[in-house]
Amino acid sequence: VTVAPDWKDLLARAAQGHIASTARLISALEARLPGREDALPGIYSAGGQAHVIGITGAPGAGKSTLVAALVMELRRRGQRVGVVAVDPSSTLSGGAILGDRIRMQQHALDPGVYVRSMSTRGTLGGLSRATVDAVAVLDAAGWPVVIVETIGVGQDEVDIIRIAQTTAIVSVPGLGDDIQAIKAGLLEVGDIHVVNKADRPDANKTISDLLHNLTLRRQFHDTSAADWAVPVMPTIALDGTGIREVADAFAAHREHLAASGELRSRERATAAARIRNVAKDLLIERIEDPTVGAAFEELVDAVAARRLDPETAARTLIGAAVETRRR
Amino acid sequence: VTVAPDWKDLLARAAQGHIASTARLISALEARLPGREDALPGIYSAGGQAHVIGITGAPGAGKSTLVAALVMELRRRGQRVGVVAVDPSSTLSGGAILGDRIRMQQHALDPGVYVRSMSTRGTLGGLSRATVDAVAVLDAAGWPVVIVETIGVGQDEVDIIRIAQTTAIVSVPGLGDDIQAIKAGLLEVGDIHVVNKADRPDANKTISDLLHNLTLRRQFHDTSAADWAVPVMPTIALDGTGIREVADAFAAHREHLAASGELRSRERATAAARIRNVAKDLLIERIEDPTVGAAFEELVDAVAARRLDPETAARTLIGAAVETRRR
Repeated sequence: VTVAPDWKDLLARAAQGHIASTARLISALEARLPGREDALPGIYSAGGQAHVIGITGAPGAGKSTLVAALVMELRRRGQRVGVVAVDPSSTLSGGAILGDRIRMQQHALDPGVYVRSMSTRGTLGGLSRATVDAVAVLDAAGWPVVIVETIGVGQDEVDIIRIAQTTAIVSVPGLGDDIQAIKAGLLEVGDIHVVNKADRPDANKTISDLLHNLTLRRQFHDTSAADWAVPVMPTIALDGTGIREVADAFAAHREHLAASGELRSRERATAAARIRNVAKDLLIERIEDPTVGAAFEELVDAVAARRLDPETAARTLIGAAVETRRR
Repeated sequence: VTVAPDWKDLLARAAQGHIASTARLISALEARLPGREDALPGIYSAGGQAHVIGITGAPGAGKSTLVAALVMELRRRGQRVGVVAVDPSSTLSGGAILGDRIRMQQHALDPGVYVRSMSTRGTLGGLSRATVDAVAVLDAAGWPVVIVETIGVGQDEVDIIRIAQTTAIVSVPGLGDDIQAIKAGLLEVGDIHVVNKADRPDANKTISDLLHNLTLRRQFHDTSAADWAVPVMPTIALDGTGIREVADAFAAHREHLAASGELRSRERATAAARIRNVAKDLLIERIEDPTVGAAFEELVDAVAARRLDPETAARTLIGAAVETRRR
């Protein structure tokens, strides 16, 4: 029997700045301990004050180093910072990957910093929900700034980024003729573009390419955020160059959102994305439900033998899942 | 009124090598023209012979150049090659992005090559299905090799890669201390690892890091593909260095799959992934259904105002979608 945690007590202690309770609350949600569903409304209604910042970009752009540098800068300004890092590779045996996480550990003894690495690989549909819940907990616990770091390619990642009020896309020079933000379909979701490792010889080309494409986008798309000029900011995260300016840009974007009324429309968009994400997860869980499992295996056999196409199989499966639920 | 195409005629002509019919068939499926559902079983039952090769990696790794070089090599061997390139950015105004696609156009007049670029951005859930259908068409039309090129990070991309029999992960040296394949959670899905731009000074480090991590993985994980030693292959796609070896490795992997009986188990895994992908898409469509729309908007308002948490909202929404279907 899994013991239900005392959800209210955990939340109350987390809100008092008790980091172990914060960590336990996130873990309890992730593990879906008993009482989770009753606890969620309280967690969500307690939140809504945090500035949620999404930081994304291709692997190798130096996102973790950038986040570590930003945390240091925000600490210098006296702000408490929570970090949720989504690491799709972290169930792998280890060591090597965690190298860049270790830099974050310089904050391990600072009660003004909380870093949570979400291990997600292999948990179907778990990525979005656990991450969104972790952000909700930090928000509810009163962390004024929550940074979400993800590898930003693919629909799942774009969905996660949608929970942020301010999104920074990190590129790195030196990958030849590709503009990573564009290749990854991320140009449009960036409120701020950061070109990290800006001491590389081809940094200026990356910056001017990004500026050029942002101008093109402004000409061809009518964006509701038209009055926010998306900045392209060079940084060298390793030595801190440009970090102060990025932190200023985050604050300026937050002010812009509040002043323009866009904060409210983004809150609606965020709510819609959250509902969709969870609904998707719940539906996938239902498909994978062992009580429907027999049907699923038969359908797989039929498709593998090409007696059936995947779409007809999927329609049959959904029918079965719905029937099961109604029984 | 949308006119239904003559699906059977299109498939018959596609199977005779008529490229315009192949293109029209893929477009008709993507646009979901009338009769699509009745046409799918015929398309799927005609397939099953193609060697489907997935090529993935972070933006900037030079995947498109590599694919172009591989196509040239396979043409030299007398093989017809179909390419499906998933480009999440391709609805953007254009020009710049398509630069690397143009290199593919050197094959534009060769009837032994067909290149299809899938524009996907903005079509919720459209990525997987349209791509899977395009591969199915090329398979049904008798293309012996079908290469699927995607930006490989995120669950959607991993799903697409699951439709391939042979998967190559492309890395590039020079991104510092990150091993991209690991960071992106892709180490495990690769049958072949390619280190492109291998003339860069730090190529050897990238290769040895990959080999080291593949060894670790072998020690810690009991993989069913244990008798296939995953190679790490250096290439310089721009000048063709190493391309012949990669093409040989593709053929060797295909032979290994057939000889070991793994081809059959992968076909089951592929079938399962296809059914799941389509089921996910269908379920999301149902959630977004305008007949359930009013409920959705109300739920979004409640979550945005924090009167409701996203999970309770999602459960309510799914209930509504199921009810609507049953009416």
